[in-house]
Amino acid sequence: MADSFYTLHKTEGAARRGTFMTPHGPIEMPAFMNVGTAGAIKGGVSSPDLCELRCQVELCNTYHLHLRPGEEVVRAMGGLHRFMNWERPILTDSGGFQVFSLASLRKIEEAGVTFQSHIDGRRIFMGPEESMRIQSALGSTIAMAFDECIQNPAERNYTSRSISRTTRWLARCRKEMDILCSRKDAVNPRQMLFGINQGSTYHDLRIEHMKAIREIPCEGYAIGGLAVGESAEEMYSVIEAVEPFMPADRPRYLMGVGTPVNILESVRRGVDLFDCVMPSRNARHGHLFTREGIRNLNNEKYKTDPLPIEEGCGCPACRNFSRAYLRHLLRAGEMLAMRLLVMHNLWFYNTLMEDIRRSLDEGRFDAFAREWIPILGRRI
Amino acid sequence: MADSFYTLHKTEGAARRGTFMTPHGPIEMPAFMNVGTAGAIKGGVSSPDLCELRCQVELCNTYHLHLRPGEEVVRAMGGLHRFMNWERPILTDSGGFQVFSLASLRKIEEAGVTFQSHIDGRRIFMGPEESMRIQSALGSTIAMAFDECIQNPAERNYTSRSISRTTRWLARCRKEMDILCSRKDAVNPRQMLFGINQGSTYHDLRIEHMKAIREIPCEGYAIGGLAVGESAEEMYSVIEAVEPFMPADRPRYLMGVGTPVNILESVRRGVDLFDCVMPSRNARHGHLFTREGIRNLNNEKYKTDPLPIEEGCGCPACRNFSRAYLRHLLRAGEMLAMRLLVMHNLWFYNTLMEDIRRSLDEGRFDAFAREWIPILGRRI
Repeated sequence: MADSFYTLHKTEGAARRGTFMTPHGPIEMPAFMNVGTAGAIKGGVSSPDLCELRCQVELCNTYHLHLRPGEEVVRAMGGLHRFMNWERPILTDSGGFQVFSLASLRKIEEAGVTFQSHIDGRRIFMGPEESMRIQSALGSTIAMAFDECIQNPAERNYTSRSISRTTRWLARCRKEMDILCSRKDAVNPRQMLFGINQGSTYHDLRIEHMKAIREIPCEGYAIGGLAVGESAEEMYSVIEAVEPFMPADRPRYLMGVGTPVNILESVRRGVDLFDCVMPSRNARHGHLFTREGIRNLNNEKYKTDPLPIEEGCGCPACRNFSRAYLRHLLRAGEMLAMRLLVMHNLWFYNTLMEDIRRSLDEGRFDAFAREWIPILGRRI
Repeated sequence: MADSFYTLHKTEGAARRGTFMTPHGPIEMPAFMNVGTAGAIKGGVSSPDLCELRCQVELCNTYHLHLRPGEEVVRAMGGLHRFMNWERPILTDSGGFQVFSLASLRKIEEAGVTFQSHIDGRRIFMGPEESMRIQSALGSTIAMAFDECIQNPAERNYTSRSISRTTRWLARCRKEMDILCSRKDAVNPRQMLFGINQGSTYHDLRIEHMKAIREIPCEGYAIGGLAVGESAEEMYSVIEAVEPFMPADRPRYLMGVGTPVNILESVRRGVDLFDCVMPSRNARHGHLFTREGIRNLNNEKYKTDPLPIEEGCGCPACRNFSRAYLRHLLRAGEMLAMRLLVMHNLWFYNTLMEDIRRSLDEGRFDAFAREWIPILGRRI
């Protein structure tokens, strides 16, 4: 088994307060990763901005970076950290999710997947080894295993065959990553690898797969293939089913999730790490997360409203500008609206995670979750 | 005559080093105004960002703000300064230029112009009084007179009739602005008014018009209707013709100009104030102004270039990021590229103006202009 870099400080029910030590510094958990798809947060937010927003860890997409600028450009620049001027941890996904959601004309075989680029249509092959080589060239802190992400609902027999292949792919990822890390010219010789649990909404297959992949030593394990068509209740029940079989001394990452309520409900069920495009995507449509609920800034009632998006919020948008000004910028299609609103929502998410951690430290997470779940989901 | 708020410190040939004192603080001249069309710089640059870029004065467009969000929204928010969170001077144009360049189905009469909005097609009437009322509601530091901006080349008889009307319009602007400033509820009771010289490329008409408008007391005078089709040489010759007839104790503003070379050549001919969308528009296409010349960041040769856009530049883009990263962001269509490149170009322009002022202070402007004119216009 690989060494554990996760320290569990405290639990409350299934909820966990821990620290994950990486080659690029600690990640206090539970944590939310801010998504910088192509090496930048959508909306004009830079790495120094992310520090101001108190982001601990950024997620970048292997598929996008492979297509543009290409991993060899990033390697030549000294890796993603130097390229983006970001010193804290970076997690790269495997490219699998985008291959299965964005690319066209896919052909899945034991070796890997052949697909067409969504940018220029060229044919590309990616398997476990290719994904590891790309992520190694990017030099991220944490690489994700190459898996098949199945849409829900999925046929049971297909799911069963798919998770067996994903287990075999994880073994190949582990082997390839060990080779890559031992190379003298490795961008990050201490690159970590997380395995990914699949199995659609079949609890027994989820558990079977989790038992199989935990035998392959990884620095963390993720639950993948959720938030892709099933209900929130189904998602929570999958987490409850699989969580007891996840190694307690490794971080647990719920991929692509979710709303503030999803996060509270999942922390409650033992999840440590999250990522989601929702804060930035919703911001670009004028939907702002606040401690009163979700505010739609397009609403006419904010036309001459001198208050900030959220009273008492310390984000760069709320410190400087009124709802009226931000609504004007949004309606005028000004990039400045995108930037300021994305910054507000990321600040909100990063602050929520800090509040969750503090409530765990102080043994009052359950009360915290009960108080905020009814509020954070409502539209105001 | 209105009081003079312009102090002339030093001259070198026709070039002038002065300070213009406004109700929102001093503008050290020669100065370049950063253009925030609809109440924000294109590319996601905020008012606090502009302070970092050492912008002295921002220009906003009356036509755009009239259509969206409407001047009454801005007035209700306490005026443009509070709306945008910008305490330094703001100049608003009259709306005339956009009426003559963006709007359609124009009908020009003595009273003013009827036109169709380029946003929703509705019929709008704007004359001198309407322009002053809108700018008064916006509460800018400096309002521009409502004039007719003629495309070059223009027919001589039409030009002659047009400048007579523009003179009569200026008298109406002055009268209306005096009334508006005397109102108890004026957003800015000390709002300044600049008259605008027209006359196409006919030197005698330009001089005739300048002599007419200088009789109407204004806090400054502008040369309008240039950089709209004529050559740079024609533009310089118009400035040379009209400059001796401009009041020496008032700032001279050359509207919509221009490249760094245009600015050096015009300062040399006695101009104090400039505005242009070029730094932000060129930045969005990857064309960056540097002390070596104009760099096209789209060029393949910057693919893995670890240097900043301009070595030694202190702007937020050059302090943090490489050409390779910025080129990647630009090609990926990331908003962050727009923001960082616009900030570089505005920093370059604002720094150029500081350098021009310092060279005037030190009596070496002519040498400075001779040294930089051949360099700043070249493509590298």
